[in-house]
Amino acid sequence: MDEVLADTIGKFITIYEQRHNTKIGINDFPGKEFNEVLPEEIRHTLREYINEPGFFRDIPVMEGAIPVVQQLHEKYDVYIVSAAMEFKYSMTAKLEWLNEHFPFISWTNIVFCGHKIVDVDIMIDDRVKNFINFGGRKILFTSPHNLAVCDYERVNTWEEVGKLLL
Amino acid sequence: MDEVLADTIGKFITIYEQRHNTKIGINDFPGKEFNEVLPEEIRHTLREYINEPGFFRDIPVMEGAIPVVQQLHEKYDVYIVSAAMEFKYSMTAKLEWLNEHFPFISWTNIVFCGHKIVDVDIMIDDRVKNFINFGGRKILFTSPHNLAVCDYERVNTWEEVGKLLL
Repeated sequence: MDEVLADTIGKFITIYEQRHNTKIGINDFPGKEFNEVLPEEIRHTLREYINEPGFFRDIPVMEGAIPVVQQLHEKYDVYIVSAAMEFKYSMTAKLEWLNEHFPFISWTNIVFCGHKIVDVDIMIDDRVKNFINFGGRKILFTSPHNLAVCDYERVNTWEEVGKLLL
Repeated sequence: MDEVLADTIGKFITIYEQRHNTKIGINDFPGKEFNEVLPEEIRHTLREYINEPGFFRDIPVMEGAIPVVQQLHEKYDVYIVSAAMEFKYSMTAKLEWLNEHFPFISWTNIVFCGHKIVDVDIMIDDRVKNFINFGGRKILFTSPHNLAVCDYERVNTWEEVGKLLL
């Protein structure tokens, strides 16, 4: 979900601009995690914001995700798999978010986990760690933190996902 | 979780004895689902009770589960996989329940899903439907509703799981 379906970094940027009067551009951090571009004195706040109830409820949808996932859903058996377990109060918000923006995805096809031990044929993910024990086709969805990774088939946008899989 | 780690039917029986003054024995329903043994006029209440916030928080642990899962965890990479997604308010309660009774299971090894599309070697489950698309070793944990099933390796207790896998 985060950084593939949900523009979580976009929400981070909004929060830090509003609450800390900082200016962070999406292009400020190639190869870095978001917390690494924050001034050190406010870096600890990121985890607090993520843990706020409802943090995951109003994250913007990634551009172009809805129509492409809808079409993928018509052609494939699409599962949404999110490492939601680390933030236990994220789960209800994430489920409501999915029901709002992707209502065609049934509860049967949603997985909240820690490690992504799913038995699927194709995985679209921004995190290389989720590919390590995965035997299927790995498609890396571009996010600032993974810009330096060269080992995987890569997509930069949902439009590109559509061209690849539809 | 339900009917394997958690004695959900035990909690159902307690609820119906307390709230409806009925008497239901665990041996009253070989081959049946719990709702099928309820008098028809109160059958609709089961889903209401399951949907009560906190329903899943205080379910008794299945006899012998904790020490055997602890030992399995020392020998194997144990994941807890629960079809929690159908009842969206069950997830936080289920996670808290696991943290209380199985604190040695890390959040990384917990999966809440609809369909159990997990890539594991061995699955212990009471529901035959979860075995259908699963290629690994299937171990059926006895529950009243599956007593008539003959097609799978079966365990009746956690003691038997321990004998089989430890």
